[in-house]
Amino acid sequence: MKNINHKILVLSGKGGVGKSTIAANLAVWLSARGKKVGLLDVDIHGPSIPKLLGLEQETVQGTGDKITPATYGRMLKVMSIGFLLRNENDALIWRGPMKHNIINNFVSNVSWDELDYLVVDCPPGTGDEPLSIAQLIPGIDGAVIVTTPQQLAVVDVKKCITFCRQLNLPVLGVIENMSGFVCPHCNRRVDIFREGGGRQMAGESNVPFLGGIPLDPEMVLACDSGRPFIAFNNQSITAQAMCSAFKPLLEVDTKIQIAKEAK
Amino acid sequence: MKNINHKILVLSGKGGVGKSTIAANLAVWLSARGKKVGLLDVDIHGPSIPKLLGLEQETVQGTGDKITPATYGRMLKVMSIGFLLRNENDALIWRGPMKHNIINNFVSNVSWDELDYLVVDCPPGTGDEPLSIAQLIPGIDGAVIVTTPQQLAVVDVKKCITFCRQLNLPVLGVIENMSGFVCPHCNRRVDIFREGGGRQMAGESNVPFLGGIPLDPEMVLACDSGRPFIAFNNQSITAQAMCSAFKPLLEVDTKIQIAKEAK
Repeated sequence: MKNINHKILVLSGKGGVGKSTIAANLAVWLSARGKKVGLLDVDIHGPSIPKLLGLEQETVQGTGDKITPATYGRMLKVMSIGFLLRNENDALIWRGPMKHNIINNFVSNVSWDELDYLVVDCPPGTGDEPLSIAQLIPGIDGAVIVTTPQQLAVVDVKKCITFCRQLNLPVLGVIENMSGFVCPHCNRRVDIFREGGGRQMAGESNVPFLGGIPLDPEMVLACDSGRPFIAFNNQSITAQAMCSAFKPLLEVDTKIQIAKEAK
Repeated sequence: MKNINHKILVLSGKGGVGKSTIAANLAVWLSARGKKVGLLDVDIHGPSIPKLLGLEQETVQGTGDKITPATYGRMLKVMSIGFLLRNENDALIWRGPMKHNIINNFVSNVSWDELDYLVVDCPPGTGDEPLSIAQLIPGIDGAVIVTTPQQLAVVDVKKCITFCRQLNLPVLGVIENMSGFVCPHCNRRVDIFREGGGRQMAGESNVPFLGGIPLDPEMVLACDSGRPFIAFNNQSITAQAMCSAFKPLLEVDTKIQIAKEAK
């Protein structure tokens, strides 16, 4: 871990808000900017990263006590429990201590080598997985927190900010995903999951708001087909919104300063 | 637990698919049919049930070693870790063993008394919470599995069916939530999260398909305002779809038989 310059967690108190999608696209976007990037998926029960990057058929090699991660393109190294399952329907019916052990393995025994950025995709909640990561990875820069706009999500995601504060993790910013929808037939806007909840929460919690990303059926298709949206649809409004939310993370040192001042 | 006639788990391998919304509406719908119902929320990190039923201000009383659950209407008893938190932003940063203990408490020490149905809302994944519930509650009738249509969700939800099979839990059926969207401006359909993935998965896994429920901004509003959709919007197409998905669960004995035959 000492050869990794920046370590960013992608967190959410709530499932299904697009955490893994944001993590995968952030990693691809950083690597397209010439950064050496690692993407670590610590969702043990529902690892989505292999599917999101079209790497479902990948397996990883072990040499001695070291695991060589999978790769996406030339600059992005990827590790997920998904690479160790024989069948995609296999379920890991594991309690916390086993999850802690495998996460420890992913942190200590994967040959990440030198990286500019390690992006860690955590499962929802404030339980074993994010807790293990926060304890096992030294010098985390901070967390990007993903929410959707509706109150039902925001309530859970606020707990995530509490989690960061209790563990002294800077909050790099909040992304409001599925923020508004434009009907492809009539071009009129419908706020299916309401709007503004993420921005409002960021304000109330005194953490940076990175931006809103619209709900886009093309994004859903991109996820299902393993083609990271930001790489293949980069002219779309949705991709532009994503880029603009990611940009401040390139200046992560500044962000950390801002987050520290806000505390 | 021995005075509870039917015990139904609401499960999903994936977060954010509407598990808690389905569980809350199912419990309200059963109680509106004259059944004595209990609703147990075992999502420790993101308890949504209090908000969904407008019970955020409720607290629960302990007498000796017994906890009296909150109530919604006359027929529905509700228990959630949410009732024990002083502040809705409080996060329980708990590892598995502590979660197991509190779930054991909810199962053993809550005065459920006689119930026709206990509906248990589990958090996503195949980890401590659903595992504890499956081990602590004797004679579970089976699980209702909730998914959204897109492959990214279906992949995780299939793991949930594997979980049920490994633990000998009958699968009562699959509900495909957020299944299609009708634009309120132009009345044309957009399959935002694709469509048919839940039905297809049910077919492939040889478990019953209970039905699809459309994505409906009114449902999102109902959730955020604590007014269970099925009780307040019962003439809408979405509520009708929900009722039709729930109906087979009233004949849960038959469903169990079907699930057992399918195994």
